[in-house]
Amino acid sequence: LQSTVTDLLLELRPSPHRAGRRAALENALRGAIRDGRLREGARLPSTRALAADLGVARATVVEVYEQLTAEGYLRSRRGSGTVVGGSVPAAARALGETRDRPRPRFDFIPGEPDCASFPRREWLAALRRVLLTAPADLLGYGDPRGVGELRAALSDYLGRIRGVAADPRSVVVFDGVGAALGMLGEVLVAAGRGSVAVEDPGMPFHREILRRVGVRVVPIRVDDHGLSVDDLEATHVGAALVTPAHQYPLGVTMSPERRAALIAWARRNDALIIEDDYDGEFRYDRQPVGAVQGLAPDHVVYAGTASKALAPGVRVGWLVLPPHVRDAVTVARAWRGGASQLEQAALADMLGRGDLDRHVRGRRAAYRHRRDLLLARLADRVPLLEVPGVAAGMHVTVRLPDGVDDVAVARHGPSASLALFPLAPHWSVDGWSGLVLGFSRPTERDFPAAVDALTRFLADQLSSAAT
Amino acid sequence: LQSTVTDLLLELRPSPHRAGRRAALENALRGAIRDGRLREGARLPSTRALAADLGVARATVVEVYEQLTAEGYLRSRRGSGTVVGGSVPAAARALGETRDRPRPRFDFIPGEPDCASFPRREWLAALRRVLLTAPADLLGYGDPRGVGELRAALSDYLGRIRGVAADPRSVVVFDGVGAALGMLGEVLVAAGRGSVAVEDPGMPFHREILRRVGVRVVPIRVDDHGLSVDDLEATHVGAALVTPAHQYPLGVTMSPERRAALIAWARRNDALIIEDDYDGEFRYDRQPVGAVQGLAPDHVVYAGTASKALAPGVRVGWLVLPPHVRDAVTVARAWRGGASQLEQAALADMLGRGDLDRHVRGRRAAYRHRRDLLLARLADRVPLLEVPGVAAGMHVTVRLPDGVDDVAVARHGPSASLALFPLAPHWSVDGWSGLVLGFSRPTERDFPAAVDALTRFLADQLSSAAT
Repeated sequence: LQSTVTDLLLELRPSPHRAGRRAALENALRGAIRDGRLREGARLPSTRALAADLGVARATVVEVYEQLTAEGYLRSRRGSGTVVGGSVPAAARALGETRDRPRPRFDFIPGEPDCASFPRREWLAALRRVLLTAPADLLGYGDPRGVGELRAALSDYLGRIRGVAADPRSVVVFDGVGAALGMLGEVLVAAGRGSVAVEDPGMPFHREILRRVGVRVVPIRVDDHGLSVDDLEATHVGAALVTPAHQYPLGVTMSPERRAALIAWARRNDALIIEDDYDGEFRYDRQPVGAVQGLAPDHVVYAGTASKALAPGVRVGWLVLPPHVRDAVTVARAWRGGASQLEQAALADMLGRGDLDRHVRGRRAAYRHRRDLLLARLADRVPLLEVPGVAAGMHVTVRLPDGVDDVAVARHGPSASLALFPLAPHWSVDGWSGLVLGFSRPTERDFPAAVDALTRFLADQLSSAAT
Repeated sequence: LQSTVTDLLLELRPSPHRAGRRAALENALRGAIRDGRLREGARLPSTRALAADLGVARATVVEVYEQLTAEGYLRSRRGSGTVVGGSVPAAARALGETRDRPRPRFDFIPGEPDCASFPRREWLAALRRVLLTAPADLLGYGDPRGVGELRAALSDYLGRIRGVAADPRSVVVFDGVGAALGMLGEVLVAAGRGSVAVEDPGMPFHREILRRVGVRVVPIRVDDHGLSVDDLEATHVGAALVTPAHQYPLGVTMSPERRAALIAWARRNDALIIEDDYDGEFRYDRQPVGAVQGLAPDHVVYAGTASKALAPGVRVGWLVLPPHVRDAVTVARAWRGGASQLEQAALADMLGRGDLDRHVRGRRAAYRHRRDLLLARLADRVPLLEVPGVAAGMHVTVRLPDGVDDVAVARHGPSASLALFPLAPHWSVDGWSGLVLGFSRPTERDFPAAVDALTRFLADQLSSAAT
């Protein structure tokens, strides 16, 4: 393998600059992992050996390993060095898919809703009303905060269903939370506050996007009550990105004591809480816990999306921003895209008519039913699995027995027509083994068969692991 | 004024870090200019005086002045120090507009098409066809390069009308060229190639976006034949961002010799040409000159947009990428937005049916007529003005007589119901005085009155300047 890595580097033009050498090594490794030349689980040479072999500073290799570990390309196993990561990040995965690998029939990808249920008729009707009545200015570059009608409708909707304290001036619309988070990260870096705590385990895409814009990402442990604020206190970050209503991926809700402690931390340090309320509409056992933002609107950036309630193909997400960061984020957004203004207006129309509420109610019932079915079948057929988390959202994370490698299990999924996603890349350091099972993506019709295939496969995998 | 600047800084919390102090001063000045506390043309204290007054290093003040000059907030007048810039950048302008300043009736903003002519019926019909027939996957997260049908349709369209050598794999769709440019800039910075030449005068938004993602921007002089490749040779940049078909703002076309020299430069230095073909569909006196990309597809990133041919409110732009940067740009785009997939499919549908071609033909005739009318009236009523550039696009830049301050002229525009845009912020150093007149934004009905108001106003301004 060492010679593979060395060969890869030799393909590259030599760079006289350390930054260039680092980038070259990083890109070569990333490319080799992405296209399969370096296989999952393969062990990399030690930093010392590789540095000597390539004639570069050991620190360069260390930085590259750290970066790629953070991105999920590599994993650091205590006592056994660095290995090629369990799954490449979702972005790279998607890139791989575009290279004509067929997608397995039963897809447990987390975070993607049942797109077959998209309300096409209502959406087209909303667009027709918009196109019949909107002034020409709606087709122009428009307000860099987004379409006024949508900002007004969202203020109302978020206040009503999530307890968010918003007014139209505090809302900025983006073409998704990813874009929003990248621009917010840029603003924090420019203000000299470029260290952000994230949850560990957490969303790989949070870490990827923040790192990409120059943020130093500081992973903080999550337990059954959410992010450990004690651990957060020990850092010197200026912001913390959290998922309080339904922690991703573990599915726990942040306890009231933790919420209070988090807000106290932000007040005491004049820090920012970034609350990603990605699936806040979907709680099944009780009223959703309100957004943290409602308790401390001056210290919280609230992020939400139409990707779960409606569909990701309609690219709309939003931030609710405290006054002191509003202008900087708006200027960052100006000239760099933003959601289609016709679709923003259509979403405002659907919100105003109650069409989105109706759609969400229908989806909530369907997803609740799916979750119940999935958990019942898992308890029945794979009783070994633990399932932490509350009755909410569009995914459950199941804990695999000790010694069962989630990456290996996921890799075998396609043989049973299953797309499965290991927990491993959600950890920044080694954590327990699990699968993040998104139960929203299969169609209604396919879902029972998907659960059957899944439970049969898992029972099989665990029994072979036990022998 | 010095005390105003000092007062501004005193409002801020002191920062123990130099980067924090710099950011604080920069933000305070930017905010004060944006909201009018510091007026256009006001002279700033010298860097030495301000540094002493604030108790910061002079280098800090120099950096802040340079940054804000680059962004257009400040201008450096040879021999007369630093003054508040002619017009704040468009992003900030838009932000100001959101604060309820009414927009003048006759708006000569460059770059925004006549949105009243948007083909609403055809667009709705395309969306209806898409919603009736598209698979559910179109509503999902989808391919990070954009919708396949659109990439295929664009390859064909761009080859046909612009001579671009594209295939569907080389096209990546974004929610606008601004977003695309930001992500391309990130990729260049990450690869250790973060110095990019831009045209001087050039698009302020190019410079703003590149700087924002950490690119070092190197302005290169433009003459009647386009960017000076001789000046480019003297730099050590890894990429050059140009507008060869219709230089913005001067309106000249890059000569064949310059195009050849530019390509030779890129080949010799293994550098990247970034070709922003923002209004390539609109040439009035002859066939448009083909894209440079067609001559050297391995060395050119081609950028195009639906914002001019269709409307900016439909957020769609694209890059055609050489193989060696494709993957990195695609991964940068993944998870950070991208255009609505429904609208991408609708645009593909319009392209496939020839509806976009038909719309562009109609707009081309209309804009050509507008340009002819504008130039005839200007020649008639304000014969002093020089108008460089070819018969193309949606704007003309007029040169004001020496000694006439374009910023002052533009500032008086609203008194005659005119929104006017000075050339000043397009220069990185002091250049000649002019106005960038976008002739596409007024409605067909308003246009003759807009030209009358403009020519009357300019004749008036120039005669009072002459006395």
